[in-house]
Amino acid sequence: MPHPRQADVFFPSQHPLHGYEAAVQGLRECGAEFHRRGWSLGTSSNYSVIVNRDPLTLVVTASGKHKEKLKPEDFVVIDGEGRPTVAGQPKSSAETLLHCVIARRMPHIGAILHTHSVSATLLSHRFLEQGAVPIAGFEMLKGLSGITTHETAIEVPIFENTQDIPVLAAQVESRIDAADTSLNHGYLIHRHGLYTWGEDLDAARRQIEIFEFLFECVARGE
Amino acid sequence: MPHPRQADVFFPSQHPLHGYEAAVQGLRECGAEFHRRGWSLGTSSNYSVIVNRDPLTLVVTASGKHKEKLKPEDFVVIDGEGRPTVAGQPKSSAETLLHCVIARRMPHIGAILHTHSVSATLLSHRFLEQGAVPIAGFEMLKGLSGITTHETAIEVPIFENTQDIPVLAAQVESRIDAADTSLNHGYLIHRHGLYTWGEDLDAARRQIEIFEFLFECVARGE
Amino acid sequence: MPHPRQADVFFPSQHPLHGYEAAVQGLRECGAEFHRRGWSLGTSSNYSVIVNRDPLTLVVTASGKHKEKLKPEDFVVIDGEGRPTVAGQPKSSAETLLHCVIARRMPHIGAILHTHSVSATLLSHRFLEQGAVPIAGFEMLKGLSGITTHETAIEVPIFENTQDIPVLAAQVESRIDAADTSLNHGYLIHRHGLYTWGEDLDAARRQIEIFEFLFECVARGE
Amino acid sequence: MPHPRQADVFFPSQHPLHGYEAAVQGLRECGAEFHRRGWSLGTSSNYSVIVNRDPLTLVVTASGKHKEKLKPEDFVVIDGEGRPTVAGQPKSSAETLLHCVIARRMPHIGAILHTHSVSATLLSHRFLEQGAVPIAGFEMLKGLSGITTHETAIEVPIFENTQDIPVLAAQVESRIDAADTSLNHGYLIHRHGLYTWGEDLDAARRQIEIFEFLFECVARGE
Repeated sequence: MPHPRQADVFFPSQHPLHGYEAAVQGLRECGAEFHRRGWSLGTSSNYSVIVNRDPLTLVVTASGKHKEKLKPEDFVVIDGEGRPTVAGQPKSSAETLLHCVIARRMPHIGAILHTHSVSATLLSHRFLEQGAVPIAGFEMLKGLSGITTHETAIEVPIFENTQDIPVLAAQVESRIDAADTSLNHGYLIHRHGLYTWGEDLDAARRQIEIFEFLFECVARGE
Repeated sequence: MPHPRQADVFFPSQHPLHGYEAAVQGLRECGAEFHRRGWSLGTSSNYSVIVNRDPLTLVVTASGKHKEKLKPEDFVVIDGEGRPTVAGQPKSSAETLLHCVIARRMPHIGAILHTHSVSATLLSHRFLEQGAVPIAGFEMLKGLSGITTHETAIEVPIFENTQDIPVLAAQVESRIDAADTSLNHGYLIHRHGLYTWGEDLDAARRQIEIFEFLFECVARGE
Repeated sequence: MPHPRQADVFFPSQHPLHGYEAAVQGLRECGAEFHRRGWSLGTSSNYSVIVNRDPLTLVVTASGKHKEKLKPEDFVVIDGEGRPTVAGQPKSSAETLLHCVIARRMPHIGAILHTHSVSATLLSHRFLEQGAVPIAGFEMLKGLSGITTHETAIEVPIFENTQDIPVLAAQVESRIDAADTSLNHGYLIHRHGLYTWGEDLDAARRQIEIFEFLFECVARGE
Repeated sequence: MPHPRQADVFFPSQHPLHGYEAAVQGLRECGAEFHRRGWSLGTSSNYSVIVNRDPLTLVVTASGKHKEKLKPEDFVVIDGEGRPTVAGQPKSSAETLLHCVIARRMPHIGAILHTHSVSATLLSHRFLEQGAVPIAGFEMLKGLSGITTHETAIEVPIFENTQDIPVLAAQVESRIDAADTSLNHGYLIHRHGLYTWGEDLDAARRQIEIFEFLFECVARGE
């Protein structure tokens, strides 16, 4: 059944999140759903919505929050470099720059989601040496943006994990700038989960579901 | 627990879905439940109810909708050839003709469901060469329409996947016309999931649950 | 979270289920919960509560009902031989006699539950030749009635499946009469699931959870 | 979605649980959530919150309760030796002393949780001979208290199971007193599940989720 809508949220006009209530509500619903499925346990995962393109502005999850019960205040408004647009907000997720890179380099993207499932964790290790998880021939691939036939082969890149997020962000950015089409849909970080995105939050969430389904198929059966 | 009923839906008399509210509500509940179980992730799956036999008329899911939260408007009324009965409706599912074939060739059928689970996807690949998934000796087989003993062996046919739905529909239709009893209960499309049906929506949903249970048994243990 | 209680049910005084409303409500909650977990899919499973010992009287699920949404009327009042106590009731489950045997032979039992999970189905086949599933050394065994240490070894008997329920009931009964202690806790039917019981419905449901946990451990890891 | 809050609980001033309503509510929510995930089936598991440090006082689950539907009265107030602070309370969990050891020896801890999942049960057996489950290189490790990089290797100790809880408690205590850092985060009991803890109940619950995620990764894929 559709999730019961959480009580409507309104921020007063001086609050940094004022006007971004829909993004906040959508991200809270993502957190509850992904937690239920085991894709955002503990304090893993972070999510963002691009709420303005000029200047580039994102609403992103605050650092270290449990995703089942995100509160309306558990979000931060940041600019395209990951800086809070106004002072006095909670600290944004440690991986904020990974959101900013995608937001800056992909002008048609409206939301970016990072989940952390068992099957993504397993595959990012099993395929680490070859640098990508190959996925081909599944009808479900058509759920990824821009794919129109199951006769498609994608390679989901795997980046080495690091606690130096600026370095990782630069690696992602340089591969996008090199027109590396393997970054069209998403990428894995070694034993750290999945980043994917979409033109809006519904599309990004669809990509998460597609990837998690495909990862589970590959993990169980390839 | 039983799903909380969604708020009642009423379409005004000039709306194409007027009079088919029960079918719409039943299909919305299917979507929510199958999404929860991971059988209808992303925008996969499509569902239909036969609302009239003369002339043949179906209510089918609109194309590209996320199944967790189907809105009352996310359905189309079509005839037995898959054409909308009146203009101005959303586009029906790309696989509409697969519903029409079953509806036309099986006069006692009232609903047709297509789900897309991990275990169906795995088995459709593991048994591709032999053309069918053999399932025998399970008590749960008795849940399929017309089966009265566990001492039954069925073969669930696997069709090659294709984006040319009219061709696939013709293949299904010719096998039914050839009185191929393997099509009594349902069929798989390679790495694309399950089609099954029943005399009404409850019966079709029961068939989905039976097949998914049996697929999981075969995938994990045979 | 605890399941939301379903709306209270009251049967008028002339109804066969009058006075047994608590049993009906408890069994409906079992159905919803076991369906959610995938232990009672399709129309599999049946459940009973012993509502009177003298004369022996059971409330048992009616035949062929989907367990997610059992209606208050989907139950039958039967005697110790499986006969309806009054005419005009729905047909009771085809496996009613299996409930009656346990009720007759185990005077301290208050409820009998039959579920049909994937792992029970797998183990009943894997261990068919040796006639029982051996389970030893698990702390969770202490959840079964009368077991006080994990240093316990049980053998869960496996009966051949059959559509001749009176024959199966007689087999179960003769093993109980032979003081076969392997029948203390429950038994499996080949590729047909688990029967277990308890002094009341809560205790029987606890036994179901314990067995399903143990079956999953053995299926995944032994 | 966030769990619907259970109706608020208030104990009258003479009740032993008076003033500890928040602890009781939090532990009830843990039980419902862990039961849903299959980590607290049957009557397995027990949970505590440290409600006072001077004198040391804990609220702990009563013995033998089903965790899905813990009632407000299903808790006991005990001192640091596991004795009820006032008479007339239900019997506390058989494993109460295991909570007391952690509470006494770890002055910054606010809650202690014990769950009993399939994957914890499997790993505690698979790694029994080597005495610990090694877990290294996972980003999710950072969810454990005090860990700041995935380049961390932990060993989760496995204790032999026993029904002599004072003996087991003494073993745990002596390893803590020996400054055994492997006990920083939690430990397993052979085929009996996980103990972990945190500075408050939210932190302890986070540790449970982290460990269960990591156990599932190791069980499925290492």
